[in-house]
Amino acid sequence: MLRAIYPGSFDPVTFGHLDMITRSAKIVDELIVGVLYNNAKSPLFSLEERVKILEETVKNIPNIRVIPFEGLLVDFAKKMEAKMIIRGLRAITDFEYELQMAQTNRKLDGGLETVFLTTSLQYSYLSSSMVKEVAAFGGDISQFVPDIVIEEIQKKIDKKRRV
Amino acid sequence: MLRAIYPGSFDPVTFGHLDMITRSAKIVDELIVGVLYNNAKSPLFSLEERVKILEETVKNIPNIRVIPFEGLLVDFAKKMEAKMIIRGLRAITDFEYELQMAQTNRKLDGGLETVFLTTSLQYSYLSSSMVKEVAAFGGDISQFVPDIVIEEIQKKIDKKRRV
Amino acid sequence: MLRAIYPGSFDPVTFGHLDMITRSAKIVDELIVGVLYNNAKSPLFSLEERVKILEETVKNIPNIRVIPFEGLLVDFAKKMEAKMIIRGLRAITDFEYELQMAQTNRKLDGGLETVFLTTSLQYSYLSSSMVKEVAAFGGDISQFVPDIVIEEIQKKIDKKRRV
Amino acid sequence: MLRAIYPGSFDPVTFGHLDMITRSAKIVDELIVGVLYNNAKSPLFSLEERVKILEETVKNIPNIRVIPFEGLLVDFAKKMEAKMIIRGLRAITDFEYELQMAQTNRKLDGGLETVFLTTSLQYSYLSSSMVKEVAAFGGDISQFVPDIVIEEIQKKIDKKRRV
Amino acid sequence: MLRAIYPGSFDPVTFGHLDMITRSAKIVDELIVGVLYNNAKSPLFSLEERVKILEETVKNIPNIRVIPFEGLLVDFAKKMEAKMIIRGLRAITDFEYELQMAQTNRKLDGGLETVFLTTSLQYSYLSSSMVKEVAAFGGDISQFVPDIVIEEIQKKIDKKRRV
Amino acid sequence: MLRAIYPGSFDPVTFGHLDMITRSAKIVDELIVGVLYNNAKSPLFSLEERVKILEETVKNIPNIRVIPFEGLLVDFAKKMEAKMIIRGLRAITDFEYELQMAQTNRKLDGGLETVFLTTSLQYSYLSSSMVKEVAAFGGDISQFVPDIVIEEIQKKIDKKRRV
Repeated sequence: MLRAIYPGSFDPVTFGHLDMITRSAKIVDELIVGVLYNNAKSPLFSLEERVKILEETVKNIPNIRVIPFEGLLVDFAKKMEAKMIIRGLRAITDFEYELQMAQTNRKLDGGLETVFLTTSLQYSYLSSSMVKEVAAFGGDISQFVPDIVIEEIQKKIDKKRRV
Repeated sequence: MLRAIYPGSFDPVTFGHLDMITRSAKIVDELIVGVLYNNAKSPLFSLEERVKILEETVKNIPNIRVIPFEGLLVDFAKKMEAKMIIRGLRAITDFEYELQMAQTNRKLDGGLETVFLTTSLQYSYLSSSMVKEVAAFGGDISQFVPDIVIEEIQKKIDKKRRV
Repeated sequence: MLRAIYPGSFDPVTFGHLDMITRSAKIVDELIVGVLYNNAKSPLFSLEERVKILEETVKNIPNIRVIPFEGLLVDFAKKMEAKMIIRGLRAITDFEYELQMAQTNRKLDGGLETVFLTTSLQYSYLSSSMVKEVAAFGGDISQFVPDIVIEEIQKKIDKKRRV
Repeated sequence: MLRAIYPGSFDPVTFGHLDMITRSAKIVDELIVGVLYNNAKSPLFSLEERVKILEETVKNIPNIRVIPFEGLLVDFAKKMEAKMIIRGLRAITDFEYELQMAQTNRKLDGGLETVFLTTSLQYSYLSSSMVKEVAAFGGDISQFVPDIVIEEIQKKIDKKRRV
Repeated sequence: MLRAIYPGSFDPVTFGHLDMITRSAKIVDELIVGVLYNNAKSPLFSLEERVKILEETVKNIPNIRVIPFEGLLVDFAKKMEAKMIIRGLRAITDFEYELQMAQTNRKLDGGLETVFLTTSLQYSYLSSSMVKEVAAFGGDISQFVPDIVIEEIQKKIDKKRRV
Repeated sequence: MLRAIYPGSFDPVTFGHLDMITRSAKIVDELIVGVLYNNAKSPLFSLEERVKILEETVKNIPNIRVIPFEGLLVDFAKKMEAKMIIRGLRAITDFEYELQMAQTNRKLDGGLETVFLTTSLQYSYLSSSMVKEVAAFGGDISQFVPDIVIEEIQKKIDKKRRV
């Protein structure tokens, strides 16, 4: 059985991520969406919120599990008994960083393979940070993220304004 | 009438920016130099100072206006009734980021076109942050910025030392 | 009056070129589509055929002229009294070559400015040579080129088979 | 069952290709090594020779078939009932070309997914054309290709000298 | 006499740095390893610790001196009477930044030449920050850094845990 | 003694090459300009002409020898007892190819080091092939090459016209 991990921060999940998830789920037997707890960055959404939003968003795809993780990706992969990491490639600067990560992970665990899918053209410019920036200034993000994310971001912004 | 915006932080304006401004002003009817207020970064010069320095520097070019803005560039362009954004291209990493911005802005406003000019060779290595770093260590920045910037940076450094 | 040249081989014209032409025609007063005669390459379509196909394709846009040229682009621009070259940017390797051309052309004619537009996402993978390759093996090119090109390519292929 | 195609010219097969093949065979159920007949290039080895050398080289891996093909990769994939293409990524210029191919193939067949593996570091500089160039000048290619390729290239060179 | 500077933060020194140092020491008469004091970043190791670790690591190479510096590299080079800077190239994003630095330094001191060596393949993915990240999560870093760095990082981590 | 090789086709030598040669000659004890005989390409100038033009051009720099070579660069370096190759870096696509060559040459001869200098900004767009293209259409190449090259190219063009 081919089990793979699609890791990320998903702060928030975008249509680009969902495109990757949908396509990945078709080529593997089980896909684990690994949601990274990263205490160095201060995320917009908490780990629990990001997991909840993702679970809601992918609930109709049967062979997916959403699982939070902390620490090294190779350790998470070992624990999950996954032998493949899936990553999306958007652009050159992505590529350099991704290549470095993939080579490091192979050094740390020789049996773990990283495969890359190219982001669909219509989402190749999308990033979570750009979505947050557009939303912060009241821009329309409905072309970038699913409805549940729009609602949750709106709640965050409303909360901030009340403070 | 072709009205275009050349946006940036200009903290401080360099000979590279001025080269872009001069050349852009020749191909459009009116050029608006949009000075971005960015509260995430702590700039060396305040928004007012950056606008003042730019106005002083471009005062001899008739079809230019220097205007500060905050928020999304597409909203600023709409308010200014400009249908074109002008950006300079120096290098690959520039290109990736600029491409992402241009595609996002087209998604947010389909009628807004971003055009790129290549930075003149002699300024292709220049950046505002490098100028600030060289100045901070007492290096000679007269090849990088106009006289008014040298004076204003000197004032900032003198002030810091007195504190 | 802002007159610009959009140069290329257009062997054949693709939806990517047409997207560039349509958008360019909106920001300049007159757009000259310059069709390069290049005797080093053996094109699929003759210079006359390429001009004819282009004229047919852009006939509904009033401020466009399709004109063949040979030799240096700077000389053609001077003859046409155009002070701007427009080029599309698809990818990194494009960028490097385009940058080199733009800098050379500025050295040859300091008053000639090259501006770049980013290719629309849905056409960013398209190239004339890929279209020819797909067509040569009987693949469906209707997503890549206008109908007139499909017909003309079909004629070429039929002719070859008869030979 | 996950069946994938690893396509290439393999003129000749290198340790870089073999590294890709070995790793790919571990993550899919069946791997088809597709050997491209390309009449535009004049290869060193004939299609039959390239297939024979590859079969000899991978004979110990059970889930691999070596099959020659001509024409569009999407048509070959359809015929083979494979829903995945595997490609290696070595460098930036690779990446651009590969991205363009992957997007074109998805346009031609929406159900066909291209995944990329990063070439192992010790083979990331290797290319078939460089191997041929080094061999042509009598350089040692034993670090680049398996023994059978060294022998077959030697035969080609001896033949040429006799002519 | 050819004296060169190999500058860096070395927080901590990796096998990639040591590979560069060893190879550089072979082509110049004297190599100065310049250890940058950078008060903007909060390093894991103090300047004194980084110098001490480097000295210990390169003690068997006779023509090397390890010297800390602050401020502009061109000023340090002048003080050391060195006419060459040596830098390693790993990847594209490296290249862009390094090119910008090299051109700026030539503007600041026309007689100072920057030369680049390519990082050995087996270390081309290595970076000090990745080493620190892997170590922070208890990963094995023995393939990335010399023994003395493993020991010193372990002390830092033990200290943190006691606090 | 540090002896280095600066290899190339020099068909023809440009101000970019001369800038590299002048700067390289300052950091090594002896610089060998290696002129590659390449029978795959049909050069504008014969090997003898290219050597003659180079010798004329660099005659005032004492520590330079111009020597033609054929075959592998590592073999030429061994014969010349040179332990260093010098190459110029202009752009990304350069970088990829150069990196691949440098790594291959280190595989073929572990003691041979390749170092890169960045091309001066004002020549960073220059290439021999672009010079030939501009000259072929009667463009002014005096900003790109020394006088002797202008004369020799003129002779070639005159000869062609008479034929």
